[in-house]
Amino acid sequence: MALAGGVGAAKLLRGLVQVVSPEDLIIVGNTGDDFEMYGLSISPDLDIVTFTLAGIVDEERGWGLAKDTFHCLDMLEKLGLETWFKLGDRDLAVQISRTDLLRHGFKLSQVTAKLCEMLDVHARLVPMSDDPVRTKVLSNQLHLDFQEYFVKRGARDVVTGVSYEGHLEASPAPGVLEAIRRAERIVICPSNPILSVGPMLSIPGFRDELRRSKGCVVSVSPIVGGKALKGPADRIMASLGFEPSAYGVANFYYDIIDYLVIDKVDEFEDGRIEDLGVKVKVTETVMKSLQDSIQLARVVMSV
Amino acid sequence: MALAGGVGAAKLLRGLVQVVSPEDLIIVGNTGDDFEMYGLSISPDLDIVTFTLAGIVDEERGWGLAKDTFHCLDMLEKLGLETWFKLGDRDLAVQISRTDLLRHGFKLSQVTAKLCEMLDVHARLVPMSDDPVRTKVLSNQLHLDFQEYFVKRGARDVVTGVSYEGHLEASPAPGVLEAIRRAERIVICPSNPILSVGPMLSIPGFRDELRRSKGCVVSVSPIVGGKALKGPADRIMASLGFEPSAYGVANFYYDIIDYLVIDKVDEFEDGRIEDLGVKVKVTETVMKSLQDSIQLARVVMSV
Repeated sequence: MALAGGVGAAKLLRGLVQVVSPEDLIIVGNTGDDFEMYGLSISPDLDIVTFTLAGIVDEERGWGLAKDTFHCLDMLEKLGLETWFKLGDRDLAVQISRTDLLRHGFKLSQVTAKLCEMLDVHARLVPMSDDPVRTKVLSNQLHLDFQEYFVKRGARDVVTGVSYEGHLEASPAPGVLEAIRRAERIVICPSNPILSVGPMLSIPGFRDELRRSKGCVVSVSPIVGGKALKGPADRIMASLGFEPSAYGVANFYYDIIDYLVIDKVDEFEDGRIEDLGVKVKVTETVMKSLQDSIQLARVVMSV
Repeated sequence: MALAGGVGAAKLLRGLVQVVSPEDLIIVGNTGDDFEMYGLSISPDLDIVTFTLAGIVDEERGWGLAKDTFHCLDMLEKLGLETWFKLGDRDLAVQISRTDLLRHGFKLSQVTAKLCEMLDVHARLVPMSDDPVRTKVLSNQLHLDFQEYFVKRGARDVVTGVSYEGHLEASPAPGVLEAIRRAERIVICPSNPILSVGPMLSIPGFRDELRRSKGCVVSVSPIVGGKALKGPADRIMASLGFEPSAYGVANFYYDIIDYLVIDKVDEFEDGRIEDLGVKVKVTETVMKSLQDSIQLARVVMSV
């Protein structure tokens, strides 16, 4: 199974489904950055994974749909609505469909399964929870919703705190804890530990189940050479007291992972990481092509 | 002021705003065929009038937006949703905006004013009511929502009954009765009497106020040569016991109108209509060009 955030995770997953049978792969997706806009229920990370595995993602951006148009958004802007979240016309259909199914009483896990089915995604994508957990970002006195911080304000604010609203009342989605218990291998994708994987780990029972897991838990560091490959993970880790490095990632996950896969440029960190009780595998972790993704997936499945 | 249904009404109104100052024109729009789809609140007749007066209507269809695309709808279809109501991408933005404003507690009359403002419509378009009134069509044993009858099933069913669900609990929108009271001239546009104007007249107080009106009430017959220019008005009138003719229209409105404007081909009906106490004006009523619309508007304003 795999725990996945957004773009970084999707890149590894597109390789993973070439290495293992997609039908055998359960992917738990982050919903901490889900939000509502125009009354639509939007699940950005679930969509990134779905669109990527369906082969319809916009490769350049890493999110949204390839060759999508923005006619509806243009008109919404003309009508005076906020349009900082760039929903294409086809993307919007996914949000309309999700919202419609939720309104008819289906759970997010059921809706996600349905969307995957309609888009021919064979891996089983499950949201971390059917209950709302909302990642909030504190920037000094400023309380920001995740997408407000991330998209609207361009992730420029200094992050002085992160919370996962609703996490104590949330349960893992049906089947998630059982999947962790039964998995031979659990891959924590190269996603932002605090913003993308953190929300899952905050749900009561989730981190404990991973800690107890008899399967091999492998994480891929999203920090390479002290920098996040994408997004603000390095800065956020630093400002929340984690070293922005592969070591810092190991430190965040040390109680749940057996292996950390780190990039060649970070090879020198192996000693400190192993001192945390985490084994290290060094390889190329930057995925530019599908071939890179497959290569990294092979490593992740073989340590 | 004017009472308006959809396409036929909009054609006269585009002429009317050239003949009178749009700011002085209050248009009461039919909301009997409003409905919900994908959780969106759709007001087809209000939109037809708005888009026409904004100069952005698809002229050929008479509804929807010119040069709109259907990418979202195509994707909705791929996702397994019903797509018989043809919402273009830009049209969808209007529905999203309306629904969003309604969800935030604004009344339909406020929302309609806002949409008109954003689209530079200077006439004052008011829905007949802020309360839901829903036109239902009975076809023998079949109970159909209006749009189901009209769009989904192509208005092919024999109509054995029409009802206006919720009309007894509805009030005219703020200002409507006062506008009727104060109007020097009230134009009932060439819309389907039963399906488009009927819903307004069914609201308690509405028809009475028109009957008492001191202004000149002028209607334009939507039936020309025994046929509806568009839509099923002729068949519906016939099956509900009204003669499908200018005379039948006069018979439907006889207690509220002073004048009926009829087409030259129906000139021979003038005697029977006048016997109902309704004065007749004969002219060309088929509006193919904007010039035709202006010409008819001039007649309507001068009888």
